[in-house]
Amino acid sequence: MPRITFVNGHYMQHLHAGIHIEDRGFQFSDGVYEVIAIRNKKLIDIESHLDRLHRSLYELSIPWPTTRRSFCIILREVIQRNRLANGSAYIQITRGRAARDFAYPDGMIPSLIIYARNAPKDTIESVAKGHKVVSKPDIRWKRSDIKTVSLLPAVMAKKAAMVEGAVEAWLVDEDGMVTEGTSSNAWIVTSNKELITRPTDNSILAGITRQTVLNLAKTAGVTFVERAFSLADAKLAKEAFCTSSTALVKPVIEIDNDRIGDGEVGPITKLLIRHYLEHMENPS
Amino acid sequence: MPRITFVNGHYMQHLHAGIHIEDRGFQFSDGVYEVIAIRNKKLIDIESHLDRLHRSLYELSIPWPTTRRSFCIILREVIQRNRLANGSAYIQITRGRAARDFAYPDGMIPSLIIYARNAPKDTIESVAKGHKVVSKPDIRWKRSDIKTVSLLPAVMAKKAAMVEGAVEAWLVDEDGMVTEGTSSNAWIVTSNKELITRPTDNSILAGITRQTVLNLAKTAGVTFVERAFSLADAKLAKEAFCTSSTALVKPVIEIDNDRIGDGEVGPITKLLIRHYLEHMENPS
Repeated sequence: MPRITFVNGHYMQHLHAGIHIEDRGFQFSDGVYEVIAIRNKKLIDIESHLDRLHRSLYELSIPWPTTRRSFCIILREVIQRNRLANGSAYIQITRGRAARDFAYPDGMIPSLIIYARNAPKDTIESVAKGHKVVSKPDIRWKRSDIKTVSLLPAVMAKKAAMVEGAVEAWLVDEDGMVTEGTSSNAWIVTSNKELITRPTDNSILAGITRQTVLNLAKTAGVTFVERAFSLADAKLAKEAFCTSSTALVKPVIEIDNDRIGDGEVGPITKLLIRHYLEHMENPS
Repeated sequence: MPRITFVNGHYMQHLHAGIHIEDRGFQFSDGVYEVIAIRNKKLIDIESHLDRLHRSLYELSIPWPTTRRSFCIILREVIQRNRLANGSAYIQITRGRAARDFAYPDGMIPSLIIYARNAPKDTIESVAKGHKVVSKPDIRWKRSDIKTVSLLPAVMAKKAAMVEGAVEAWLVDEDGMVTEGTSSNAWIVTSNKELITRPTDNSILAGITRQTVLNLAKTAGVTFVERAFSLADAKLAKEAFCTSSTALVKPVIEIDNDRIGDGEVGPITKLLIRHYLEHMENPS
């Protein structure tokens, strides 16, 4: 069965899913995206993802390509046509196609791309493994709160991390504070069992998984605080992890070759993984 | 006669020139570009453009998609097939296509797109008109010296400028210094007839037209210095202009509603326009 992808009004074989070279997504990174986890055929936290997509479009003055209702119908149709049970959906909306010019014309018709991909269903065992991250300078633009495809700085940092045997780069601003990972939010647990993640501002993405994990921590009675932490704080932490829609809650046991805590996945991280997987099984 | 565009080894109708949605240029702005002016069927300053393209590719670890020699043959073929005498060529090279992942796999085959477009031949009369620019905060990433398609911050500033009736936005860093325009370099002439433009570093693009104009200024005996200037300096200037491969030398007579000099295109600007047009007629 060939993979089916939605591009600008048409369902087509993924292999042939193309856009014009003058689509502004290609020439100017003038577009936004979302990645939504799929578990048991359900889209996890879909309303939060669509709310964020709405905000991203608003920030770039790109209109919705369809109504939100039609959008959900297309999204579910893509999942169904691909008989997808577990994996993720990728959505990209760009400003559309026009003769190349930095200043776009008014009244453009946005491009909409939706595809899905299959992945093994995550389990406690597959998620609760310790990983290494490395720190890299955060040289991105000053609106990382908008989920745009202008991702090159993140790509460069992530690739550099992989070359160094790490799964993620934690980005550090000029004040030595960790902003976030290249495609995940960053968390630590201090020696007095306080869970810390940076508050949302223009320098980080307001992760949907980040918000869900904050909610789960609250329910589970974990003490937490949203405040910026430094790279030095992170290296002194008892536990550390990343969150994202596809990485879920990803344990970090090494930062820049410094061992975190005792080098094992810690109890609060494990607790949150368990709760997050339960949330995916029974989304509210 | 339909427009002909080159995409990944094929000459095709521009109308049908597409790339796959998983091209990393589309999903991650993982690519670079060049725009080269064409005058009297000649590519202006082609070697400098190809040298810069080489550097951009190197900075992103993207290999050349062809030899430089083959590249030039394709470029000239596109111009010829479109019977282009005056206008510009657009070149984009991306990392290529792969299943979406921030960290790209090794050994990818880059994508190459080349097209050309027709434009009226510039004359002293068409170029030497005064324009308005506005200032905007420079919120771009810290490697604006690489000519990548990660252009969204520039797009947003340029569009805001156009809405305010300006032709360009001059970007201002946190210290109040002008870095450059969104798609051009920024210049001023002080009251003691000194021509000033910012030296190249990681915060601006090393414009090819910028370098040519520096050379022409030298030959013409214009006193010049490469140093950073502030927005306040610019507003006190006697003359101001932008340079780029397509804007050439574009006079600026108003910045943020403040008149520059006497509000007319000044003598040094006019001199440089004349010399630049001569350079295009008789490229060295």
